Amino acid sequence: MPSSAPELRRVTVLSGGVGGARFVQGLLYGLRSGVVPGGSADTEVTVVTNTADDWWVHGLKVCPDLDTVMYTLGDGIDVERGWGRREETWSARTELEAYGVEPTWFGLGDRDIATHLVRTQMLEAGFTLSQVTEALCRRWLTPAHGTRVRLLPMSDDRVETHVAIADPDTPSGRRVVHFQEYWVRLRASVPAEAVVVVGQDAATPAPGVLEAIAETDLVVLPPSNPVVSVGTILGVPGVRDAVRATRAPVVGVSPIVGGSHVHGMAAQMLTSIGVEVSAAGVGRHYGARSSGGVLDGWLVDERDAAQLPRLEEAGVRARAVPLMMSDHDATAAMAAAAVSLAWPA
Amino acid sequence: MPSSAPELRRVTVLSGGVGGARFVQGLLYGLRSGVVPGGSADTEVTVVTNTADDWWVHGLKVCPDLDTVMYTLGDGIDVERGWGRREETWSARTELEAYGVEPTWFGLGDRDIATHLVRTQMLEAGFTLSQVTEALCRRWLTPAHGTRVRLLPMSDDRVETHVAIADPDTPSGRRVVHFQEYWVRLRASVPAEAVVVVGQDAATPAPGVLEAIAETDLVVLPPSNPVVSVGTILGVPGVRDAVRATRAPVVGVSPIVGGSHVHGMAAQMLTSIGVEVSAAGVGRHYGARSSGGVLDGWLVDERDAAQLPRLEEAGVRARAVPLMMSDHDATAAMAAAAVSLAWPA
Repeated sequence: MPSSAPELRRVTVLSGGVGGARFVQGLLYGLRSGVVPGGSADTEVTVVTNTADDWWVHGLKVCPDLDTVMYTLGDGIDVERGWGRREETWSARTELEAYGVEPTWFGLGDRDIATHLVRTQMLEAGFTLSQVTEALCRRWLTPAHGTRVRLLPMSDDRVETHVAIADPDTPSGRRVVHFQEYWVRLRASVPAEAVVVVGQDAATPAPGVLEAIAETDLVVLPPSNPVVSVGTILGVPGVRDAVRATRAPVVGVSPIVGGSHVHGMAAQMLTSIGVEVSAAGVGRHYGARSSGGVLDGWLVDERDAAQLPRLEEAGVRARAVPLMMSDHDATAAMAAAAVSLAWPA
Repeated sequence: MPSSAPELRRVTVLSGGVGGARFVQGLLYGLRSGVVPGGSADTEVTVVTNTADDWWVHGLKVCPDLDTVMYTLGDGIDVERGWGRREETWSARTELEAYGVEPTWFGLGDRDIATHLVRTQMLEAGFTLSQVTEALCRRWLTPAHGTRVRLLPMSDDRVETHVAIADPDTPSGRRVVHFQEYWVRLRASVPAEAVVVVGQDAATPAPGVLEAIAETDLVVLPPSNPVVSVGTILGVPGVRDAVRATRAPVVGVSPIVGGSHVHGMAAQMLTSIGVEVSAAGVGRHYGARSSGGVLDGWLVDERDAAQLPRLEEAGVRARAVPLMMSDHDATAAMAAAAVSLAWPA
């Protein structure tokens, strides 16, 4: 796919956890290696990250998406698992279980706990989550990693995704659980009847978020969960408007390939909000900027090429390319395709 | 040493960390095995434990003496080190160092961190340290350990030992450091010019402490630090008076053997308050109940037998026996000697 991309000085990505982190890793690799049109190792990448999965557990503030992005880009991630630290140990988890402390289904690794201790202590000392994130990233996102990347939480305010599930044992027949309980304990195995993002209406974007969207050369929605990751970022008051208003093109990468998600639980979440679980379904859910949505372009997997006309009908420029992030080269090629889609020749 | 001890239903020990914990372990062993006169496996032992070494580190409430006693009696202690958990791992410490977070000289083990997480979260939820300690001990001090023992913090209030040291770089020529910094970072290698126990005057004994001293058959001061362990317990308003007033005999075991401490840093601390570093010096520092002190009897090591007359002169009944806690049998024999000293035949 040829491209007439201008010099890419800045790219802004609205990311969730594993999928977004891997995409950004490939994007950075592609920028350094020169395969991304207009890009270079000097391109500054800002990752605005979902914080609606955050929660407090065992007295610690845990930010799964921020940490997944930070560890992935800082080469500290457990690649097999996709989250948490490499060479992790689990002594504290064993002990917490021995004490009988709930929740026993959310295991914190010992290395990971250090991150949460630093974060919790800084938050309790009055620093904002943005400041804490910047401090933590001083260790992980150094020039030694060959990146010019910064990580911003979507908001410094408490925003929490909760999921309503059927529960015949309650008077209402429903129970609302924190996203982590839905995802980690229940493994998204029961239907989500509704998603409730507590605190979202009152939240404000973290410092730098609106600027990163307004003053950039490209906005990318990576293959993250459209509901509980990118959806919650766009739901912070002001963010969707900023994406709609930016002069930069906005392109997205489908998290749905061949009728299901590649990682995570996008299918369950899309179903809960009545969106068709397909590449075209998600693209149309985001919608074309020309008709009130947030997208200029939408990449789908080559297996979903038959859905391209439905996207073009909706005013979204679309292309089909291989969308499996199997290695850095494959992911960099996806990032290059996203850029090419923003500025087609 | 023959003894006319009555049935020992209850024993109360005022303990610091390693030395006190090992003594209590030997006492319990001796009660179970029948070598302690009047005692049995049914004897209830209450350990009132120093909390003036407690501090907050990395946002966690750490209670070194409570934990040392709890882990020792619950068979979870690292026996070689004398403190902390057996089969400990240190992943979180490595990570905290990588983040550059101070203090780097106070290492928290991963297993140990779980204890601090439970404690910190309970304290922040509004439970008292007594309640937290009881909850933690439900895991460690079970009947399966063959003990009838309970652990009480000396106070639920914040009481903190600080140490004044010379520092030519300050205007006053002095610097005041937390006890943990003096002990762990400086390894008590500089003279302590003064000991300041912050918050002590305003503290009240924890629930059950005064009752455990008044309504017992025997009070024991184990070979703990007379200044920063037993001294701080006695310094909680009401405790010294309770020890002086109890109808039970009060006997102590010298932490100084042959002119120096066996564990810890009693020598440095005694010097800082102008007390002679000897078995007799400590015994006379505690003083005889008959003349305003807290002791009826005082056990010294056989190497210090020549000091017995100085103790008897001061009104303290004294005996010389082997005082090395080299194994459970040796320690049980010390405990038996302490009981025999309380009720000499």
